[in-house]
Formats: sequence, structure tokens, C-alpha cells
Amino acid sequence: MDSHYDVIVIGGGPGGVAAAVRASQLGGKVALVEPHALGGFCMNRGCVPFVHMMEAAKHLFPLSPAKLMGIECKKKNLLTLQKRQDELISFMRMGIEGILKKNRVELFNNHGRLHGPGRVKLNGQVISASKVIIATGAQWVPMDMAIKESPRVVTSDFLLSHHEIPKRCLIMGEHGAHFLKIAQILISFGSDVSILTPYSSLLPYEDKPIRNRITKALERQGIKILTNTQVISTKEKKTGLQVDLNSDGKDTSIQVDMLISSRRRSMLQSIGLETVGLDPDVEFLSTNQRMECEAEGIYAVGDAAAPQERHYSHLASAGGVVAGENAMGMNSVLEERLVPRVTFTSPQIACVGLTKRQAKEKGYDVVVGTAPISMNPLGMIKDQQEGIVEVVADKRCGEILGVHIVAEAAAEMIGLALAFIQLEGTLEELARTPLPHPTLAESISEAARDALGRPLFIT
Amino acid sequence: MDSHYDVIVIGGGPGGVAAAVRASQLGGKVALVEPHALGGFCMNRGCVPFVHMMEAAKHLFPLSPAKLMGIECKKKNLLTLQKRQDELISFMRMGIEGILKKNRVELFNNHGRLHGPGRVKLNGQVISASKVIIATGAQWVPMDMAIKESPRVVTSDFLLSHHEIPKRCLIMGEHGAHFLKIAQILISFGSDVSILTPYSSLLPYEDKPIRNRITKALERQGIKILTNTQVISTKEKKTGLQVDLNSDGKDTSIQVDMLISSRRRSMLQSIGLETVGLDPDVEFLSTNQRMECEAEGIYAVGDAAAPQERHYSHLASAGGVVAGENAMGMNSVLEERLVPRVTFTSPQIACVGLTKRQAKEKGYDVVVGTAPISMNPLGMIKDQQEGIVEVVADKRCGEILGVHIVAEAAAEMIGLALAFIQLEGTLEELARTPLPHPTLAESISEAARDALGRPLFIT
Repeated sequence: MDSHYDVIVIGGGPGGVAAAVRASQLGGKVALVEPHALGGFCMNRGCVPFVHMMEAAKHLFPLSPAKLMGIECKKKNLLTLQKRQDELISFMRMGIEGILKKNRVELFNNHGRLHGPGRVKLNGQVISASKVIIATGAQWVPMDMAIKESPRVVTSDFLLSHHEIPKRCLIMGEHGAHFLKIAQILISFGSDVSILTPYSSLLPYEDKPIRNRITKALERQGIKILTNTQVISTKEKKTGLQVDLNSDGKDTSIQVDMLISSRRRSMLQSIGLETVGLDPDVEFLSTNQRMECEAEGIYAVGDAAAPQERHYSHLASAGGVVAGENAMGMNSVLEERLVPRVTFTSPQIACVGLTKRQAKEKGYDVVVGTAPISMNPLGMIKDQQEGIVEVVADKRCGEILGVHIVAEAAAEMIGLALAFIQLEGTLEELARTPLPHPTLAESISEAARDALGRPLFIT
Repeated sequence: MDSHYDVIVIGGGPGGVAAAVRASQLGGKVALVEPHALGGFCMNRGCVPFVHMMEAAKHLFPLSPAKLMGIECKKKNLLTLQKRQDELISFMRMGIEGILKKNRVELFNNHGRLHGPGRVKLNGQVISASKVIIATGAQWVPMDMAIKESPRVVTSDFLLSHHEIPKRCLIMGEHGAHFLKIAQILISFGSDVSILTPYSSLLPYEDKPIRNRITKALERQGIKILTNTQVISTKEKKTGLQVDLNSDGKDTSIQVDMLISSRRRSMLQSIGLETVGLDPDVEFLSTNQRMECEAEGIYAVGDAAAPQERHYSHLASAGGVVAGENAMGMNSVLEERLVPRVTFTSPQIACVGLTKRQAKEKGYDVVVGTAPISMNPLGMIKDQQEGIVEVVADKRCGEILGVHIVAEAAAEMIGLALAFIQLEGTLEELARTPLPHPTLAESISEAARDALGRPLFIT
């Protein structure tokens, strides 16, 4: 058979591309199968377009202190923004094509389906490989029965092509954080925005100060937050969509122009998992640290291998590298504890490692240091009232267990924390890292000094 | 004698405050002597007000991609900006007072002058201490003879209180980087801006790609850069100030409304150095890594102990901590190689460790990896055409020797590089740090992968 590969990767998002490129760099003959646009959800309908919209939104009240500085910023139209992001996305897709070409990865523009061990069926054609890496990503979860089909019931995809901003929006939150960004974009573009979540708080898996502060920031920006809330039913009215809710045990109702769902789930039903002995009805594929599935020679990475709260492009690509290396005979592991949990809101949230509660449960002698960004000079300049850095460490040996940040540049700052956990730096060392002034990052060292009982800049 | 202290600190800027607080935390009886406002140049007339102005400027063309995104931003007036920064500065000063009080540091609002070993003279009064820490900062260098006194010849202090933006400005550059920020603030507020430097390029001590890219960025924003240039003379004209120059060996002339000088030098002449056997005519006080001067029991930190290109607030405070600790009997050293060189321009510049040339001169087997930010997804979104990350490492053991960044968030990103140098992480480890997506920081790992010959995202 001519078309035998060392590795076949199914899916051309960030996980699949990283896996294919890395396997090829190690000398493999690699095929990548992707029926749609390269780049996956992240590049085409997720992080990239919405972070682009957030960049625009950050100039506008209530996300920006520009007004306080005597600068007036106005949105002129959405068309310019959407045109630019469509161009950027096309350009990025071409970039990925170029990367695949440079690394000699063979690209099949087809739907790929497992066809027994080591075999993948394309349109009619079957190709084979020693190893198969599943990187099929996720898809929108169909709406609950309670929600009737309506042009007013949409996913965030709607915002990528619609040229008008809906006046009143209700966003249905989930375990992830994508929906918080959307709420902020809409409110800064002039919408009246509410969000609902079935949980008792936003980001229920994060530490209390982080949850409280992002909640405060969103509320100060004018976003209404409904916790412990479910949709009971929807009714089409002349003046909008009536959404009946149960919120904190009480029945209530809200009228909106747009109800936006953001729930996603791994896309596993139509890729032939049963032909290799895997269950196609799981929520997501489980793997070990080498990204190996329970079926011999099959790896899984990215959103296909994670619950929605772990749908991170950087988790996908880090997993892709590990899968690509192992498929080519290396022995790599993905250190999940190093993977940051990031939300591209304003302020951003970036957390890595253990929360205070997790650290206690694991039996550490926990010490926590905090530094409010409201007392950091650049934080004051940037009006970061709700910002905070929290460092969780072990008192005995000073091991850094977790770092949690709410701050405008949290996602750019968190690298320092990753490095300290990765390289096993201590609290004492972190307290002495001479971070530049004035930055928000300085507060990381200050939080370490606070944990040691000797803050320099906190009154 | 009643007023005997363990430590007297002369100067209440970032170096002096850090020294005083740290010495007090270690149980010392500490006095701090400062005749003017607490916070020093940085807080009152340097980083804080100008970074605040940069934050406003960043909303405006040509520093911002807002326009490309369909957002229109306009400066309404300077008064709002200046009022806000005056309020911020007052608030920050009160914060420092609070920190000193909380740490039981006794504050003398006086000019302090050395009065023999272990003695400091205030107005009439003499106080004594086992150790004295000099943190007197720097001051503006008087204008060259070539430049006649004129209301059109000013320092950057002028911009803090003047409510109109001068139409045509010429900024005299020096070895530091303060003047680049001022040039960008002025151009985004509508000035026509030229800068001159006596050197053959901007930031002459940095690597060529860094120098070239920041030069390109400034030129693209419309700033005219005159290298190898000196002022020959100035003439007052009805229509402005005529500045005669020698630029690249040729005589030329330019007419401006404002000539802005930015040269600063340690302030050592009037503090009685000669009474403890030190030379008051040096450019700056030299110290060892423990921040000790050549005179017994005397330490020096901050701008008083550094040439202008090393006038960094974070160098001052890191040195202050070390001096405070050593003055109280500890044995601390300042690791200068960890101190980042940062410029708060747009894009920012942040560099740490050795340049490529320095690494070669030191005999390392140098490998350099680069990642252009123009190919980073967030870099594309933020229109960071000139951005770059450069990682300099030793090929044999993978030791990270230097990291140099041009990017909007460079100063927030550089902490990762500091950590790797501080904790002796390797190229291989840096290549695997799972930085969040989409961030500019991702390009640091990519540059490490490039150095290892296996970039993931560069075509």
C-alpha cells in the first residue's frame, strides 16, 4: 500500500498541527486530515476573532480608563473590525499551510474517520499509519429542550458575521470562560448584558479571591450576573425573546433580543472510535500523560481529550507536541500542573498550579501571599481596582504550588510563575526576582514577599 | 547621644525606601532623610507620570491599531490627564508614607549631608548611625555651552505642568531611554517630533535586531531620528528656536518650538562625601555587589550609584534591599545580570542578560533563536510589525544567557526570562514551557525552539 504513514493526525487545529509538525521534525512521514479550515475553533471562531474584538473593546468605556485620562474613544462601525479580523484569519491560515509545507506534512482536505486499527478512511480512500493522533476538537452542544429554536437563540459564531450589536443580550455561561469575554465585548459595544451560570459563582474551580474579584470587575462594568440559574423556557414575543428562569430557587423572567449559548463538547461521535475499540459516547477521550488512549497506537489531544473548562489552545498544542514525540518513539509527558488556566477578559485571569484548597487537601503546610494590584503603581495608572496576585506555597520548603492573577496583563505575566513551578524555584528566590518597574508583574514578587512576612510596598 | 540609629538612609526614592523598610524589617532602628517629596524622580517626575501619559497616548494614532479596528480615539485635553496624574502621584506618596510608618522608619523632612563617618547633618541637628546608605538619586545635567538659555529650552519636567503641546519638538537623547517615551507621547498628542543622539544608533548597547526594530517602529510612527548628531548652537528667532546641528559630519539646522534635554547624572556634589573620604566629583558612586562604597560603613544604591543608562527604579529598589540587609549584618549580593533593561515605549523593549556580542566575547558557544512577533497571532492582532524575541544561549549546555524583547507587553513578559536565568533553566526547558495562547509571551518559547532548530509556528 502506497499511502502508509508513520503518523496520521485527524484534525488541523492547534493540537493537530503541533502534533504533525513535531512528528515530521523527528523524521516521520506524516499526514494531516482536516475537512474545514486549518486553525480549528481557536483561530477561526474562538480566541483569535474574540481576542481581536476584545482589543477593540479595550479602548472603550467601561473596559478602559481612557476617559479618566481625557481621551475619548468611540466605535465607528463593526464592519471595519470584522473585515480586519477576516483578513487576519485568512493570513494566519495561510501561515499554517506554510508551516505544514515547510515541515513536509501531507495535508488531506477531507473528513477523516478511523477504519480499524492504524487505518483512516477519507472520501473512499483508506490510508494507514503506525500511529494515529485524534485532534478533532469540539462542537457546540445542541440547545436544551427548554429553549425553543429561534433566530434569537444563537452561539457566539453569530457575532462574527452580524453587523449590528443586539441591544439586550443574555449569555448562558458554562464551566469554561469564553462567555465572559463575549459579555464584555457586547457591553463595551453598547449592549445591555446579563450572564447566567448554573454554578454558585463564576469560575467555580478557582480560589475565592479570584472568583470574587472578577465578579466585582464585571459588575462594576455593568454586567448583570445570575448565579445558580437555569433556563426554564423561552417564549417569542413581539418585543423580544422572553426567557423564564429559575434563579437561586426563585422563578423570574427576562426579555432579550439575543440569547447566546456557549456550551461546547468534544466531537467524537462520527470519527469511528468504535472501529478501534473506543467508546464514541464518552464526554471526551481520556489519555495518560503521554497522550495515549486506551487503544494501542492511538493518541488524543486538545478539546477532543478534555472537558470544556480545559479547552485551551495552548493545552492542545502542548499535548500535540507530546503526542507527536511519543508517536515517533520518544518518551515525553505533558505536565498538566504547568498548564495555565487563562481567561482573556479585562482584566485577564491567569492561574497555574494548585488553589489554596487543593494545596491543603494534598497535605501541604500552606502559606498564601497576596499583593493587590490596586496598590501597584501601574495598576493605579491602569485603574486595575480588582487586580490581585496570589501566591500559594509550602511553608516548609518554600515550594511554589500555585500562582493566581487577576490583572490586565495576567496572561503575559503568568510565564514567570510557570517557570518557577517548572524549575522548582522557591518563595525566597521569587521574592528576589528584580521585576521591572513600573509593571503589573512586580506584584508577583511582592506577593512572594508577603508570603514570607516582609512585603516592601504593601501598607 | 539620643539620636543614634542602626541605619540612616539619605534619600526617599525607590532605592532609599526599599533600603529603609528592609533594614527595619530586620530589627534595625532606621532613619530616612528626604528634603523633598517621597518617591524620588521615578514617582514624581519620571516613570509614573510619563508611563501614565504613555497609557493615554497608546489609545491614539500612530501608537495604536484602534483605527484599523474601527475605533476612533481623540485627545480632548491635557488638563484631565495632568490632573489625574497629580492625584495619582499624591496618592502614591501617601502610600509610601504609610509603608514607612508601618515599618517604623523615622522620617526626617530635611536635606541630609554626611558629617564624618557615621554622622549625618540635618538642619543644625546631627544624627549618627552604624551604617549610612546613600540614595540621593540624580539631577538634570546643565545644558551645554552651545545651547543658550531660553524659555524654549526645557527638560521633560516642562511637560508635566504645561497645558499645551508644543508644535515642533527636538529631543536631545542620551544613553538612557527616557527620551524615546517622551518622543512618542508628543507625536501621538500631535507634535512634529525629531530626536537626536550623539551615538550611531538608538540604544547602542543592545543587540542589532533590537536597535533596528525600535528604530523602525519610531520611524513608522513619524518620528525623525538624527544619529551621530550634536548641537552646535541655538538662535532665538521670531518663528521659533533655530538649532544648528552637526549630523553625520554635515552641518544642518532645524527650527523648533521646544528643545527638550533629558540628560541626568548622579547628585553627589552637596552631600559631604569628602567628610568620609569619598570623592564628590565622580560621575556616580561605585560599589561592590554588596552595595558597599569604598568608605567603611557606607552603602550606595540607585541613580547615585549608576550611570544614566542604568537609572532604573527596579535596580534602585533591588539594590536598596541588598544594602538594607547588609547594613543589618546579612550577607546579600545584587545579581546585576538579572536586572532587566527596560524602555516603556510602544512597543516596549525589555532585555536581560548578555547580548550576542557579549556572549561571544565571554567565550560561550553562542546560539541565537528568534521569533518575530509579526508572526505571533496576538502580535498580528495588535499590529506589532517590529516585535521580536531573541534568545541567546550556550549551545553546549543550553544555558540561557540573554533574552531580548521588542513587544507591547515586553516588560510584563520579561519575568519568564529573569526566572530562567535566575534558576538556571535550559533552552530545552524553555522550549517546553506551555505559555498561554494567544499571548505575545508565547514567542519566548518559540524563540527557544528556534534556537534548538525546531520552531513550531515559524515558516
